[in-house]
Amino acid sequence: MKKNLLFACIIIILPVFCFDMSAQPDGWTLKAPGVWMKKAGVPEEYSLLSAAGTKPQEAALAKMGGKEFPLDELLISAEVIDGKTYLRFPLVRDEQIYGFGLNFKTVKQRGKILNLHVDHYGGTDNGRTHAPVPFYVSDRGYGVFVNSSRYLTVYAGTGVRKESPEAPEPRDRNTDRRWTSQPYSDAVEILVPAPGAEIYVFAGPTPLDAVRRYILYCGGGCLPPRWGLGFTQRVPTLYTSEQVEAEAKLFEEKGFPLDFIGLEPGWQSKSYPCTLEWDKTRYPDPPAFVKTMSEMGIHLNLWTNPYLSPVSPIYEKMLPLSGTHTVWGGIVPDLSLAEARDLMLSQIGNSQVIIGVSGYKLDECDGYDRWLWPDVAKFPSGTNAEQLRQTYGLQLQKMITGLYHENNSRTYGLTRASNGGSPSFPFVIYNDYYSHEDFITALINSGFSGVLWTPEVRSSKTGEEWLRRMQTVIFSPMAMINAWSSGTKPWSFPDVEKNVKEYALLRMQLLPYFYSEFAKYHFEGTPPFRGMNLETGFNVAGSVSQNENLNEDPYSEAITKEIKDQYMAGENLLVAPLFTGQTTRKVVLPKGKWFDFYTGKLAGDGEIITVTPGLGKIPVFVRDGGIIPLMPPALHVPAAGQKFNLEIRYYGSVPSAYMVYDDDGETFEYEKGMYSWREIRVAPGKKGKLSGTISKAEKGKPDNIGNVSWKFMSEE
Amino acid sequence: MKKNLLFACIIIILPVFCFDMSAQPDGWTLKAPGVWMKKAGVPEEYSLLSAAGTKPQEAALAKMGGKEFPLDELLISAEVIDGKTYLRFPLVRDEQIYGFGLNFKTVKQRGKILNLHVDHYGGTDNGRTHAPVPFYVSDRGYGVFVNSSRYLTVYAGTGVRKESPEAPEPRDRNTDRRWTSQPYSDAVEILVPAPGAEIYVFAGPTPLDAVRRYILYCGGGCLPPRWGLGFTQRVPTLYTSEQVEAEAKLFEEKGFPLDFIGLEPGWQSKSYPCTLEWDKTRYPDPPAFVKTMSEMGIHLNLWTNPYLSPVSPIYEKMLPLSGTHTVWGGIVPDLSLAEARDLMLSQIGNSQVIIGVSGYKLDECDGYDRWLWPDVAKFPSGTNAEQLRQTYGLQLQKMITGLYHENNSRTYGLTRASNGGSPSFPFVIYNDYYSHEDFITALINSGFSGVLWTPEVRSSKTGEEWLRRMQTVIFSPMAMINAWSSGTKPWSFPDVEKNVKEYALLRMQLLPYFYSEFAKYHFEGTPPFRGMNLETGFNVAGSVSQNENLNEDPYSEAITKEIKDQYMAGENLLVAPLFTGQTTRKVVLPKGKWFDFYTGKLAGDGEIITVTPGLGKIPVFVRDGGIIPLMPPALHVPAAGQKFNLEIRYYGSVPSAYMVYDDDGETFEYEKGMYSWREIRVAPGKKGKLSGTISKAEKGKPDNIGNVSWKFMSEE
Repeated sequence: MKKNLLFACIIIILPVFCFDMSAQPDGWTLKAPGVWMKKAGVPEEYSLLSAAGTKPQEAALAKMGGKEFPLDELLISAEVIDGKTYLRFPLVRDEQIYGFGLNFKTVKQRGKILNLHVDHYGGTDNGRTHAPVPFYVSDRGYGVFVNSSRYLTVYAGTGVRKESPEAPEPRDRNTDRRWTSQPYSDAVEILVPAPGAEIYVFAGPTPLDAVRRYILYCGGGCLPPRWGLGFTQRVPTLYTSEQVEAEAKLFEEKGFPLDFIGLEPGWQSKSYPCTLEWDKTRYPDPPAFVKTMSEMGIHLNLWTNPYLSPVSPIYEKMLPLSGTHTVWGGIVPDLSLAEARDLMLSQIGNSQVIIGVSGYKLDECDGYDRWLWPDVAKFPSGTNAEQLRQTYGLQLQKMITGLYHENNSRTYGLTRASNGGSPSFPFVIYNDYYSHEDFITALINSGFSGVLWTPEVRSSKTGEEWLRRMQTVIFSPMAMINAWSSGTKPWSFPDVEKNVKEYALLRMQLLPYFYSEFAKYHFEGTPPFRGMNLETGFNVAGSVSQNENLNEDPYSEAITKEIKDQYMAGENLLVAPLFTGQTTRKVVLPKGKWFDFYTGKLAGDGEIITVTPGLGKIPVFVRDGGIIPLMPPALHVPAAGQKFNLEIRYYGSVPSAYMVYDDDGETFEYEKGMYSWREIRVAPGKKGKLSGTISKAEKGKPDNIGNVSWKFMSEE
Repeated sequence: MKKNLLFACIIIILPVFCFDMSAQPDGWTLKAPGVWMKKAGVPEEYSLLSAAGTKPQEAALAKMGGKEFPLDELLISAEVIDGKTYLRFPLVRDEQIYGFGLNFKTVKQRGKILNLHVDHYGGTDNGRTHAPVPFYVSDRGYGVFVNSSRYLTVYAGTGVRKESPEAPEPRDRNTDRRWTSQPYSDAVEILVPAPGAEIYVFAGPTPLDAVRRYILYCGGGCLPPRWGLGFTQRVPTLYTSEQVEAEAKLFEEKGFPLDFIGLEPGWQSKSYPCTLEWDKTRYPDPPAFVKTMSEMGIHLNLWTNPYLSPVSPIYEKMLPLSGTHTVWGGIVPDLSLAEARDLMLSQIGNSQVIIGVSGYKLDECDGYDRWLWPDVAKFPSGTNAEQLRQTYGLQLQKMITGLYHENNSRTYGLTRASNGGSPSFPFVIYNDYYSHEDFITALINSGFSGVLWTPEVRSSKTGEEWLRRMQTVIFSPMAMINAWSSGTKPWSFPDVEKNVKEYALLRMQLLPYFYSEFAKYHFEGTPPFRGMNLETGFNVAGSVSQNENLNEDPYSEAITKEIKDQYMAGENLLVAPLFTGQTTRKVVLPKGKWFDFYTGKLAGDGEIITVTPGLGKIPVFVRDGGIIPLMPPALHVPAAGQKFNLEIRYYGSVPSAYMVYDDDGETFEYEKGMYSWREIRVAPGKKGKLSGTISKAEKGKPDNIGNVSWKFMSEE
């Protein structure tokens, strides 16, 4: 696949997009190779995809090629009864499914009942979450998506039909020990409380391929600006511009990297509800402030929620475009109306983006019910309150994304709500919950659903916790401290300050790698952070069933359990965090040899290993042949056109290749082909010694890589 | 009111039922005096009331008299949008509301968001419970009921409309300390996911009156057979008939009262799913067994769930009358079809009721989702899975109630699911949850919603816990040990055996009192067990707001908090349980003097008292003038026609009266007027000494009271 990537880059600029329309399953439309859609009933016009407004990456999908419909279409059922749509998709024995959005406690979804409902996360994986994406992927290598903006009830392999050929034999609970409260179910059933929905099926052949097709169909993953992958600090809510400048200087003085600062509610003249205008006392001269920060190499991100205070400059105009109910007394813009979005953008654009603000944190668009508009609220567009609840995060992301796209300036921000259709939006989900373990499970689940998640660091009880959290946020889509309430800094715990700095700088070193991985998210649909179950050699059929001979094969046991505390960061890194109180842990290595990231030494070969890394290290492993391009440690990411040297690390011994991506790092010129993929190759040379090559950038394309050095990590 | 009760009993046999039909609020129909109904949109035919099939107690409602519509009808709004019904009812400042069914943790409902959904109780008061009754009562003295069998979403004073005249001023969270996440809301809003619903309003003037009107409109409360109020033991699941007989003998030998025994799944030949037929090995001769038990004075109650095993005798006939999905492999009868109910009754009637079985425990008709049929299930009647879920408990209760009514033999049983419309069904709700504190809160909440609840005793870690639980179940609708899994007996904890026996016998002594209170439930709609907030002199307006001067008036503070650990058992008893680990507690006494039940001594006068009763006592208080009719301790309740002596206890010093009820205790002859209300009066005599009188039973009416003795408990 990697070999053909340069070829792919040529393919995607071909104007012709054609594939075989013949011989599709009855009622199914081939939307792209390996992507089928069927209308169940009469789908509503306002859907997740229509709200997100994303366009499929047609060329990339074409490149993935055609596949056969991956399910027995006769086993898929869609029926409309009394205005509701009943959907059924088959499951086979031992099949496992993943996805349904941002779950925090569980990875495997077979056997779950979920009510997909945008909400804050309340501590239970019941479907109420920040991104309840109605997409699931099967370990049999296909995906299913229901394009509806309603609250869907999902029976993910729980209901048992009496007419099922697989219907289990009833047992007598009085006397039969094999009795179970949950007999075998052979289907995913979904209730759509509307008279129709579009259903999509995505082919594999691997589960990761199905995820990639879903993401590409939703426009491909976002490509953040390069600075978005640097380090970010969110300052206390009532900070003044002087305090923010002082904080940035302090980072510089102390030698901690910093690429963007987030301002919390205090930047606004009033908040909860919001004015969307600068507070004149705390920020007397916003243009000068933004300029000063920019000269220090610091981008700015502004917190907001979408509910408007009566003293907001756009309040009067928004009033007729808002819903019947208020949130904290603020009106709720009907963001399904372009007019309302444009009005909000006019305020944001003219007072903030125009002077150089780089992004937003979209708060409080998820829940919870006591604060948000109720389902009985009405909106001027006629969009239902339920539908708006499911898509408010999408609309906000689309709105901001569009504004920056018009300005030909990339943005990277935060959102508390998302849903299906969102992959192309450059927003990372965060929340108020703070379980470190569950944050990692969320990071794993984000990868199944085409969303991004940050296990943000806010505060800690001990230096140990602080460092353990910092070690994981470094290996996530947004390396962030959110100090809005706590006032913490990276150096808040002196006992681990040195370690924190080391990891913050490692984040900066890894930038060429992470930037390339995000480019693959964009161009190929591969989620940059993802669960082990999407890894070839890890995902083993039979994971749903009890293992009968655990004594003989403990590895088999481990893979039947939930693996929710280790994940892939890009193509080559396996990250296995430790949590407070842990000094040792087990790591399940997929098939093949894996090497220690720090030392290059062999860590194991398709086995379960136990590691005791010490507080100073987070265990990270590299696959055999893994290539990791690093840049030198720096306090800011390279600006557009600024050259940087590359240290290319290679692990293991098998011949391999890696595509490293580059562009200007800031604009959308890459959409016009202004980017480079350079191929790194490593193979044994004449005398068996490893040696590496890197291809040149195409003429006229961005070429920011300066000197290249090589480190063969596993050579003796 | 009590004075007029004999008069009322005459009134209710008058054939003419008339009231003023004129001058009703626009769109509202006067259904009975003080009961109004309005159709919002086009109500569905299948509703809670149609499923329950209950008939209003018209004469009793007429006796309560007409009242003015208790709300500003212009502030009630009902709108149908896109097939859903949006309802709104006003709230005023400081108003508090109660109800919405069987909540376990909270009594006050203003500020809650609930999705009313029949389900097992999952530990959170979110609307998912065994009886999510869509009825609420206001402390302003009115009630509201939504007659819909859908999953209703209730915003009980949370949504804020921008056009509300009471819309709160937005505040700036950056700087204003008065900012709150939940600004003032002036309405209860309810979303009905159907194009219509009947809405009912019930007048007061007191909150208890509104509850009574609701209960009378639903047919009045049930009147259990006398034996139903005795003691009951549920035996281990695989007990044989010999073991059951032995257990009953042991009760007799040890001197513990016992009126009915519950058989758990093992009485059936197969369970989960069920056959509904006797197991031939454990119960070789059911008629002989039932007869033996009956001769020992023991009635029998049979556990079942409604899901049918393929080997059930009625399976083949039920198959076409069942839903698409199975539960534990059993088919799910479509109980909205009379044909399905009749088929089930034929089996129950011919193999069990005909030989003398006295009642049922209707298990597993509530939830939880993983076991029950999904909302995508379809049923042959066309009744929606959602609607059937909301009413399955109602249908089962209606079915069994009807069978016993036809046999002119009263029943009293258990159900895990109920809903609005149920008060006349002689079933007590129970569940698997086991928090003693929350069981008492559920008992309080049952009274607001016209359902009965038992804080059943199953097992305990210590004698203390065992006794504390026994002390409360004695003051509940069903005095029960459920030993299906634990095998416990009343004497399982020798250290408290004597105390347990004392309370079990006290339950028997209190029978004339409790039986009379249930008669008032039936004839007057007054819930026999209920929260303090329905007590005059306790329910104080302003309970929703923060009290500003707690130092000056701590009593005021106490009533602003949730009172969820003390309750009224009938008209005169205030029960204040202690829980494991407690040796002392506070009790909030309503206005007026209250006396210790055991000693007759003054306990307090409209104040908060602290009691330290010792492990052997549960604090119980009697109001000034409270009359409690007791019978002698006995191991079984008196059979029909069997005389019993009465000890009439009187507390305090004010002149008062109490109506004691009697009938044959077993049949429905009371429906034909075959019952007695006898008036007990106590007043100071010539020399200021208290003296009492009891009226005679009407000629030809039941008269089982033998000798009467008097105890003036508070006289020095």
